[in-house]
Amino acid sequence: MSEIEVPESHPRYQSLLTRHRIEDGVKKGITSTQGLIAQGRGEAFDYLLGERTIPSADRAERVAAAHLLLAEQPVLSVNGNVAALVPEELVELAEVTDADLEVNLFNRTEERIHAIVDHLHEHGASEVKGTAADERIPGLDHERAKVDSDGIYAADVVLVPLEDGDRAEALAAMGKTELVIDLNPLSRSQQASTVPIIDNAIRAIPAITTHARVLQRASSTLEEMRTIIDEFDREAILADAERVIRNGSD
Amino acid sequence: MSEIEVPESHPRYQSLLTRHRIEDGVKKGITSTQGLIAQGRGEAFDYLLGERTIPSADRAERVAAAHLLLAEQPVLSVNGNVAALVPEELVELAEVTDADLEVNLFNRTEERIHAIVDHLHEHGASEVKGTAADERIPGLDHERAKVDSDGIYAADVVLVPLEDGDRAEALAAMGKTELVIDLNPLSRSQQASTVPIIDNAIRAIPAITTHARVLQRASSTLEEMRTIIDEFDREAILADAERVIRNGSD
Repeated sequence: MSEIEVPESHPRYQSLLTRHRIEDGVKKGITSTQGLIAQGRGEAFDYLLGERTIPSADRAERVAAAHLLLAEQPVLSVNGNVAALVPEELVELAEVTDADLEVNLFNRTEERIHAIVDHLHEHGASEVKGTAADERIPGLDHERAKVDSDGIYAADVVLVPLEDGDRAEALAAMGKTELVIDLNPLSRSQQASTVPIIDNAIRAIPAITTHARVLQRASSTLEEMRTIIDEFDREAILADAERVIRNGSD
Repeated sequence: MSEIEVPESHPRYQSLLTRHRIEDGVKKGITSTQGLIAQGRGEAFDYLLGERTIPSADRAERVAAAHLLLAEQPVLSVNGNVAALVPEELVELAEVTDADLEVNLFNRTEERIHAIVDHLHEHGASEVKGTAADERIPGLDHERAKVDSDGIYAADVVLVPLEDGDRAEALAAMGKTELVIDLNPLSRSQQASTVPIIDNAIRAIPAITTHARVLQRASSTLEEMRTIIDEFDREAILADAERVIRNGSD
């Protein structure tokens, strides 16, 4: 038994746990109205994908892990939905890849930023960025442009879950390597991504951590990790996910 | 200009109006957390359908109108989402087809029932059922089974928007004609429906009203309306919507 009164073997375990964590996120002021609607949109695409990590998404997750490990300054951008759904898993991925966590919200309010920072601390995070907000992403309106100068602004690799399309494009225009988790392969965020991860964040975040651990354990050389990155074909990944969604099978 | 500061000619008018009404529904205590997630799931399927009423959905809406006009005791079941999105349109459909409105919630709380009843009254409804809750749909647990004895319990035809799968099946088991508005053709609700309406409620409700008006104006005989109903092929409607979602075109 875990935080919900259902054994992990239950066929609807993941769905019930997701629902519980989202409800809890609403109570804590972490998840916004638009975040809940976005959650539903994701669930529909996940349903069409078969609520599983398709093989091409697993390949993208391995490449994302290589990017995070090779980065000079990797940052995991945290919004209300992933904070509610996978707080511990985000902290773990940040530790394994030596990345910073930065809270970055589409509908930014100081209350929600602080509620999310507190929530991440409760789940083991030491430092959480996002409260300084002392720099701006060029080309976005004021509120949505706010980032930390020593966080997303300076990062070379950013993992963005369910990002707003405008901001995903603006980050790409800054030349950053964007690892985008979004279940809609046709979204503007995925079109702007360096590595499109078309998978549920609840599965994707732990999967990237596992790949990072395996790459570290195998003592992969920089050269080997660069090869993994160079051989990655993002167009093929996008096309594969769309094909599975349209056809309903691999 | 209407309730939002955007002209109706704006390409994102429907989307912005939907967002505004949903946010307003949250503020008024009408829309629930699960309702917001369901809204998002619907948006994703609507996106794949091209955010339009596909021709087969229009045929289903005409058949739904015929069912409501021929019914002895038609009831429009109202949940938090449709109450927030199309309150006036529901009242108009109820008037045109001489149907009752009954508030019926998956996550039933007395506060939310009363907030929705008030909201419908503000939008022109005279009588709204759902507060008596003096009967039970067989086969469901207590809270979800509650209905009015002179409303859904006694109805021969029920229009249900975005119904929970268990309740859709339980209503079908009672022998009711179920007109189900749900954008997912694979949902258990649509599998249990008599008439699957695979369209956004924001388009479907006014479309059913228009069809009902046309059928009335043409002084269609009972026989003609029965023919419309008899010629309806629900399997073809379900298959057509799934094909459009999968293939992206008609």
